[in-house]
Amino acid sequence: MEKLCPRFEKAMGLLSTRWVGLILFDLLKGTKRFSEMEADLPISGRLLSDRLKLLEKEGIVERNIYSEFPVRIEYSLSDKGRSLEPVIKEIQCWAEDNISEEEVKEQSV
Amino acid sequence: MEKLCPRFEKAMGLLSTRWVGLILFDLLKGTKRFSEMEADLPISGRLLSDRLKLLEKEGIVERNIYSEFPVRIEYSLSDKGRSLEPVIKEIQCWAEDNISEEEVKEQSV
Repeated sequence: MEKLCPRFEKAMGLLSTRWVGLILFDLLKGTKRFSEMEADLPISGRLLSDRLKLLEKEGIVERNIYSEFPVRIEYSLSDKGRSLEPVIKEIQCWAEDNISEEEVKEQSV
Repeated sequence: MEKLCPRFEKAMGLLSTRWVGLILFDLLKGTKRFSEMEADLPISGRLLSDRLKLLEKEGIVERNIYSEFPVRIEYSLSDKGRSLEPVIKEIQCWAEDNISEEEVKEQSV
């Protein structure tokens, strides 16, 4: 247990950063352009860009630039990012089974 | 996705509260008395007590009082708490496979 905990905390810290879960959900559906993600998610372009930079730094998201005109920039999950799928699925299932609408409302008050 | 996200965020918020993961790890091993948990975990009694209250409020931890002398108080996971086991296992596995010792050290600086 002692050995795993710092890693667990690091993983939890990352996953619990606001909007990171949502961004990962979105990228699990496939490669996306920045503008597509901006349309999918209820956050500002600036915040999205910040989070994508963080996830790129952590090796979870890959950024590909295609030298077309206008330049095309696409984001996708790396292997490390894709390996988060079961984690996200488990949290999603647990939340669905165990957290009621009321609890969610309470929290947002 | 939209429907699940507030629940996902609520679950993540809970799991990422500092020391909550560690306390859940400890209680997955079985029912514990407060003093046992205090000995197992590297946190103060006050912090442990705070987190246990939070987890009780969320219906994840159960507190049983036995009217002996001295009073015996035991903590265990509720069904809802126990259902977190696969979530914790998945995060643990992912962290073990994907987060290096170096990354953990970097973070603690």
